[in-house]
Amino acid sequence: MKVILGVSNRHVHLTEKTYKKLFGEKPLEVAKKLRQPEQFASNRFVTIKTEAGEINKVRVVGPLRKYNQVEISKTDSYLLKINPPIRESGNIKGSCPITIIGDSGEVHLKEGCILANRHIHITPDEIKKYNLENIKKVKIKINGKKPGILENVYLKIAKKSKLELHLDTDDSNAFNVKTGQKFEIIIEK
Amino acid sequence: MKVILGVSNRHVHLTEKTYKKLFGEKPLEVAKKLRQPEQFASNRFVTIKTEAGEINKVRVVGPLRKYNQVEISKTDSYLLKINPPIRESGNIKGSCPITIIGDSGEVHLKEGCILANRHIHITPDEIKKYNLENIKKVKIKINGKKPGILENVYLKIAKKSKLELHLDTDDSNAFNVKTGQKFEIIIEK
Repeated sequence: MKVILGVSNRHVHLTEKTYKKLFGEKPLEVAKKLRQPEQFASNRFVTIKTEAGEINKVRVVGPLRKYNQVEISKTDSYLLKINPPIRESGNIKGSCPITIIGDSGEVHLKEGCILANRHIHITPDEIKKYNLENIKKVKIKINGKKPGILENVYLKIAKKSKLELHLDTDDSNAFNVKTGQKFEIIIEK
Repeated sequence: MKVILGVSNRHVHLTEKTYKKLFGEKPLEVAKKLRQPEQFASNRFVTIKTEAGEINKVRVVGPLRKYNQVEISKTDSYLLKINPPIRESGNIKGSCPITIIGDSGEVHLKEGCILANRHIHITPDEIKKYNLENIKKVKIKINGKKPGILENVYLKIAKKSKLELHLDTDDSNAFNVKTGQKFEIIIEK
């Protein structure tokens, strides 16, 4: 069983309230549709900032959500001098504080900055089809010049999803791989 | 069999001629001794530059060598918009051109920028002790929150060396590990 890779560069998810503080009445528009249904790379960028440093041109991923979340890489975390937990998207309780700066304002989040865990978007039907019932996480085999095995790749099951492996830029750069490549799933026994 | 990790941040090795162009008569001094005999993090930093971008505060690693070499991560390569080959240190033929800027001058290298391969410094005596004769490369098992297996970890045999695993910052950040941690070597059959 193979799965297509989508590399997640650093990005933010925003609530409507936060978006309006950052961008006022400017609309959030689709720059590029993503593989996951309804998700899109938007036309808006923010700067993310801590006391130690800042990173600009961080993409807002749409649509707007019920929570604010900043997803960065471990590499980014050294620049910002923070130590975010490795989390599933949406699980931000007790994660790192961070400031988000937009075109017309800024918002300080008391929590919300995480390192996203390795995961695969998959439907309940695909779970059945590939005999993955009762399996929480799998491994991914990478070939090429920097080969190896990625473990703790969590299955993220949702009806409205398309089969896709999400890795952050640390993982994709360490293994010298890119969005669109396909990789073998290994079932952990 | 376990090996201690030393994470290699981006750095440069310089010839005496290049060093003098970059720093004039200022001496190259030891800021911190490294684990490998005679090797040291020096007190000198350069900027590395391509047409697309630049990275500053890149450490000069001493002592001076017979060749110029710039070792960066895949993450850095996207910023500089170059595609360096994955190479053993010293094997720079046909690698990427890059400009190095020092306090008192700059030097353009026609080749010299690489991504260092994953490797282990090991002595001939240790090769015998651990039954690694005729083995070119091994695997490394990583536990923790982002576990997995790193493959193509080359054995770099030299009498004057100390057992140490060298990974770049992409690998160490992808697996959430740090200098000083110890990891299990798996022999590839």
